Formats: sequence, structure tokens, C-alpha cells
Amino acid sequence: MKWKALFLVAVTAVAVIATLTPSTSGQTDQIATSVFLTKIPAGYRDWRLISVAHEEGDLRSFAAVLGNDIAINAYRSGKLPFPDGAIIGALHYSHVSSEENNNVFGRAQSFVPGPPTNIQFMVKDSKKYASTGGWGFAHFNKDGTPADEAMLKTCFPCHQMTKATDLVF
Amino acid sequence: MKWKALFLVAVTAVAVIATLTPSTSGQTDQIATSVFLTKIPAGYRDWRLISVAHEEGDLRSFAAVLGNDIAINAYRSGKLPFPDGAIIGALHYSHVSSEENNNVFGRAQSFVPGPPTNIQFMVKDSKKYASTGGWGFAHFNKDGTPADEAMLKTCFPCHQMTKATDLVF
Repeated sequence: MKWKALFLVAVTAVAVIATLTPSTSGQTDQIATSVFLTKIPAGYRDWRLISVAHEEGDLRSFAAVLGNDIAINAYRSGKLPFPDGAIIGALHYSHVSSEENNNVFGRAQSFVPGPPTNIQFMVKDSKKYASTGGWGFAHFNKDGTPADEAMLKTCFPCHQMTKATDLVF
Repeated sequence: MKWKALFLVAVTAVAVIATLTPSTSGQTDQIATSVFLTKIPAGYRDWRLISVAHEEGDLRSFAAVLGNDIAINAYRSGKLPFPDGAIIGALHYSHVSSEENNNVFGRAQSFVPGPPTNIQFMVKDSKKYASTGGWGFAHFNKDGTPADEAMLKTCFPCHQMTKATDLVF
């Protein structure tokens, strides 16, 4: 299983109520609260490791992807789809050269996390988030503020391209 | 705090009794058992995340650095040296391009862990490992076998270059 840019930073709990996709029925408020997280899950920094990732291009970032117990158990069992209650997130940082490590290695080869950049979560609730494949999405900036609507709208369109892995990549 | 190539793979517990540095007193056997781990610590894959790392050069690898509770508490408190009982390790994998992710992003920018490569630990015991700065070292190959003596001898000479961070980098 592979994982994309799911970004987390060590921020305190913040709230975000936003709209992933504009309502076509006029019930924008209902869709907003049903598709996005309202706050960062407590204790996520103590969750267990799923994987790591590195993005170049415009991102140039490191991710450490973590999962709560439900997500970890599902991930290790290899069974899809993820059950309700699974939450996946990633601590994301800039990808920077480490002068300290390079000095030890004697060559420029080492990269470590720089400043945190942002935080993202996917939360599985097959009923609450039925309109987006059973997943709720969230993205918080490094200062703890939620991403703007334009950013949030980009989550589901990409994730729905990976149906074979229950929208997780 | 920054971290170098500490490599872990998901292997079952194996034993390694080796010598970091040749004894200058002729008591090689005693030094061997006092400087290295005898087996991979149980349950390390459930430890909490400390950091991630990426090495280019000859390694071309990803590391996820994990710590047991004692190590995590020390790391978060920012107090050095690490107390006895602290264990730090890293799951290490090859650093490979992700075709799946690149297809989603629409450009070649994404790297994910490839096959696991090896596993390393540092174990703090200020008395048992007094001759190597209070740390015991271990390196296991991807098949679970311990690294040869030549490899193991390279641990301490590099780590002792980072005394300011209690040999951890």
C-alpha cells in the first residue's frame, strides 16, 4: 500500500468546518459538516507508524504517515475497505539537507525534516462521509488554521483515483 | 535533534553477539557481550515515531526512527543524556519512485519505501555499555542476520562524533 501527501504538523487541536465540493442541492451547510473533520484528533502524535513518504516537485516534503489503532489493525490485516473509525494522518515537514549528518558521513547525502508544513487527516465513516467514498478529509496549515476551500476541494478528486486501495495512497 | 542512518526492517527476533572494537586487553569475549544487543527488542514496530530520514549517496534509503517509551519521553523532554533503558531504532527501506503516486500527481515527484534493507538499534545502558558512551549498537540485515564485524565496528566511531546530542543524530 502506498501513500500520498498526507501532511501533519504538531499543532494543537483546531476546528475546521469546510466544504469539499459545492452543494448542488443548495444544502451547503449540511454537506460542509458531513464531509470534513471538525477538529484534529487528540493524541495523533502517539499513533503508530504506517509509512513514510517524500515528495519533490512543488512540495519538497517529508511525510510520516500514522494511524490510530483501528487504522493500524486494518492496515496490518491487509483487508479493505478500512472500517469505520479508522483515521490516517501524516506529519509533514519540509525536506532539507542536514549539514550535521553530512559532516558525519563525510559527504552531502543526508536529508532530514525541516520545519513542519501542514497536517492532514482522513477519517473513515461510511455513513457520515458517504458522498466522498466514506472518508472525511482535513488539512491544517502549519499555524493550525484550516486550509482554504480551494485547497480542501483538491483532496477527494485525487483520492478517488485510487479506489483499489480504498482511496488511500 | 537529527538522526542518521538507523535502519530497521520487520524481522523476527534474532541474536547478535559481536565486537564493536577489538579488545586491547585481550578480553575480547567480555567486550563483545557488553557492547552489543543480543536480540531485537520485542514490539519495536509499535513504538512511537521520533523522526524520519532520507539518505542518498551509496545508501539511497528511507528511515523511520522510532523510540520506546523511555526514549520518547526523553526526546520530548529535550533532556540529555538519554536515560538507561532508552532504545532508538529505525525501519529502513530503499528509497524508490512511486509510479502509483506519480500518476495521481500527474508528475514524477513521489518517493516511497521500497523493500526493507536493514535494522539498527541503539540501547542506552550507562554501565553495561560504558566503553561506548553508554550505548549498545546493533545492525541486522534484511534477512534478520546480524551484520558482520566490519560493519558493526563502524557504528561507534561515527556516533561518538555527536557528543552534544548524546551520540544520537
